Amino acid sequence: MKAAIMGYGTIGSGVAEVLEINGGSIAKRVGEPIEIKYILDLRDFPGDPIQEKIVHDYKAIAEDPEVRIVVETMGGVEPAYTFVKTMLEAGKHVTTSNKALVAAKGAELIALAKEKNVNFMFEASVGGGIPIIRPLNSCLTADEIEEITGIINGTTNYMLTKMSEEGLEFDAVLKEAQEKGYAEKDPTADIEGYDACRKIAILTSLVCGQQVDFEDIHTEGITKITAADMKYAKTMGRAIKLLATSKKTEEGYTAMVAPFLLPPEHPLYSVNGVFNAIFVHGNVLGDAMFYGSGAGKLPTASAVVADVVEMAKNSDKNIPVEWSSKKLKLVDSDNAVNRFFIRTEVPDRDKIRECFGEVEYVEAEGVTGELGFVTNAMREGELAQKTEALGGVLQMIRMA
Amino acid sequence: MKAAIMGYGTIGSGVAEVLEINGGSIAKRVGEPIEIKYILDLRDFPGDPIQEKIVHDYKAIAEDPEVRIVVETMGGVEPAYTFVKTMLEAGKHVTTSNKALVAAKGAELIALAKEKNVNFMFEASVGGGIPIIRPLNSCLTADEIEEITGIINGTTNYMLTKMSEEGLEFDAVLKEAQEKGYAEKDPTADIEGYDACRKIAILTSLVCGQQVDFEDIHTEGITKITAADMKYAKTMGRAIKLLATSKKTEEGYTAMVAPFLLPPEHPLYSVNGVFNAIFVHGNVLGDAMFYGSGAGKLPTASAVVADVVEMAKNSDKNIPVEWSSKKLKLVDSDNAVNRFFIRTEVPDRDKIRECFGEVEYVEAEGVTGELGFVTNAMREGELAQKTEALGGVLQMIRMA
Repeated sequence: MKAAIMGYGTIGSGVAEVLEINGGSIAKRVGEPIEIKYILDLRDFPGDPIQEKIVHDYKAIAEDPEVRIVVETMGGVEPAYTFVKTMLEAGKHVTTSNKALVAAKGAELIALAKEKNVNFMFEASVGGGIPIIRPLNSCLTADEIEEITGIINGTTNYMLTKMSEEGLEFDAVLKEAQEKGYAEKDPTADIEGYDACRKIAILTSLVCGQQVDFEDIHTEGITKITAADMKYAKTMGRAIKLLATSKKTEEGYTAMVAPFLLPPEHPLYSVNGVFNAIFVHGNVLGDAMFYGSGAGKLPTASAVVADVVEMAKNSDKNIPVEWSSKKLKLVDSDNAVNRFFIRTEVPDRDKIRECFGEVEYVEAEGVTGELGFVTNAMREGELAQKTEALGGVLQMIRMA
Repeated sequence: MKAAIMGYGTIGSGVAEVLEINGGSIAKRVGEPIEIKYILDLRDFPGDPIQEKIVHDYKAIAEDPEVRIVVETMGGVEPAYTFVKTMLEAGKHVTTSNKALVAAKGAELIALAKEKNVNFMFEASVGGGIPIIRPLNSCLTADEIEEITGIINGTTNYMLTKMSEEGLEFDAVLKEAQEKGYAEKDPTADIEGYDACRKIAILTSLVCGQQVDFEDIHTEGITKITAADMKYAKTMGRAIKLLATSKKTEEGYTAMVAPFLLPPEHPLYSVNGVFNAIFVHGNVLGDAMFYGSGAGKLPTASAVVADVVEMAKNSDKNIPVEWSSKKLKLVDSDNAVNRFFIRTEVPDRDKIRECFGEVEYVEAEGVTGELGFVTNAMREGELAQKTEALGGVLQMIRMA
């Protein structure tokens, strides 16, 4: 079984490494060895044994009928989209780790794969090595999934864990994460929540079977989280985590990416460092959670290669995926209901009561000249009005 | 698509309920509705709408060519084995929640299903609603699984959690668990670890692709765990959990069921109450964990129905499962290496040092007239010799 890799960066070279390390057992599972025939990259790798497989034109892969499986690990929507589309049109199976591509073009590429009787798989696009796409598609099929909530960005989870454990401010932790290679030079996509947003768009699309546009999802990052917030969280016995969540409500699906305060009994409370986890609530299954390495070269490559194995074992058929191009209209985020932790520089309990009714007050050691409190459950839109009426709001974090 | 249920107890009636509750979305996934044509049970259910489907002879199901899928939820090896074998021989797909049957006859029934081009599935036999069989079989296929360790018995996990939280003794907690329906009237299979033993035998068979006989697995239950042990655990900041574990070592596979002391950083540390979780370490994936409801009517039925959906979607083909009847010889448990927490009524540090070398001493509040300590890593066989030399050993619990 001949395969090609498009993009020989971290994940792409990891895929080659996994096929090398576990080639024997993989061949046993598939029934024949998986051999990499081409590697597409702009660069050359003189001296590297893979150099002889390097091609610079993707058409060399598309036009070779021997290649049955193509791995896309380039990242970004273009030119990945053009290349993947060409491969599917040429009757080749494609797996990708590229969440930007899947979030933007998933429905279309799934439909094209079906038309061509091949597969378009993307297990590695969410949760790195954690199996979540295939479990949603083939394990949780007896359920109506009512909630899916994940810690699905390792960079921000590492940073929040550090801030919590060491009492550091955001900027100091970001600098350290960049030095250690846990955050990119331009960390915007991670710290602003854009990465998590694309991933929850993918998961929600799979759950509801329709297209969820990531641009429609209310998204907040972690850039405004401070050491003082962590002190309040400790007082409350809670942890601050960047959650990507979607829920099926009577009014429709809600989706959001934002920092939340989690109580110890929440299944995601103890997910620390670079680990990821995805919590799922099904109407008959109840609660389930999938936990593991959400990023990293080999864990992510492991998920890509699991797709390769699945496609090789099903090389003559399309495995159906429910994700139509019909757009799902999300419930307006103003209508989502939450409880909120608020810090205000107006330490006037009468005024707070006037605006919010009865609340729970929270004080944090060493934080002065302000007042923290937790509201009752209310709609996001209502909160906005009330905080405006109160004034002097320093921070708002949702309670999970 | 016509189906039959054999055994209308808790799980069997749960399967009917799940097919009722989520019938619409299941029909959409399968492409046609799943209809229950027969329910096999010794009893009659007069007045119940399912009464018209009740049959008392399994041959009525086997001989009806309309029935494509059979659900076995009777429990026990016989007559379940005879019935399931007959159904597979008649060319019907079978799913079971019956760990005793799968542990004893899994390899044979998998081979028979393959021969007849149907499927024998058993997602619900381990971890209740938690997807673990299918993930092992179709998601973690790029890896060599080096360890699989689970909390896979809800009854004992509930009891240990209660003992830890409320400082109660084993007997009191067992009585309460029985009153609440979390433990059976005859709780032997759960509290002696026999249930967990069958489940880890199934998981290990899937990981290594060979037959692991549950009788070969060293198995200890939780009956000897006391309130004093819980006090020591608290001092160490650890939790006592009944783990079922198997590891691939240089000498071969080891497997064991026993109580362990888990540190807070262990992924299974915070799995409490009736929840189950299964930790997996793959050579490229790294650490992963699957968490959820390990028992209960609807969660377990959810897993059974997910098998039904998968079989209905693949009704014309056999999905290969690697589990041959070739017996795997486990490494002698005397050769397994662990660290051990020991309580001795010989509070003589010189003697302890003489037998065990340098150890870490542990004292627990309110426990007197004895001494606790933690050994270095050593083989189980070596420990047995050393504890005999020391004498007066009150308790031994392994460190995870």
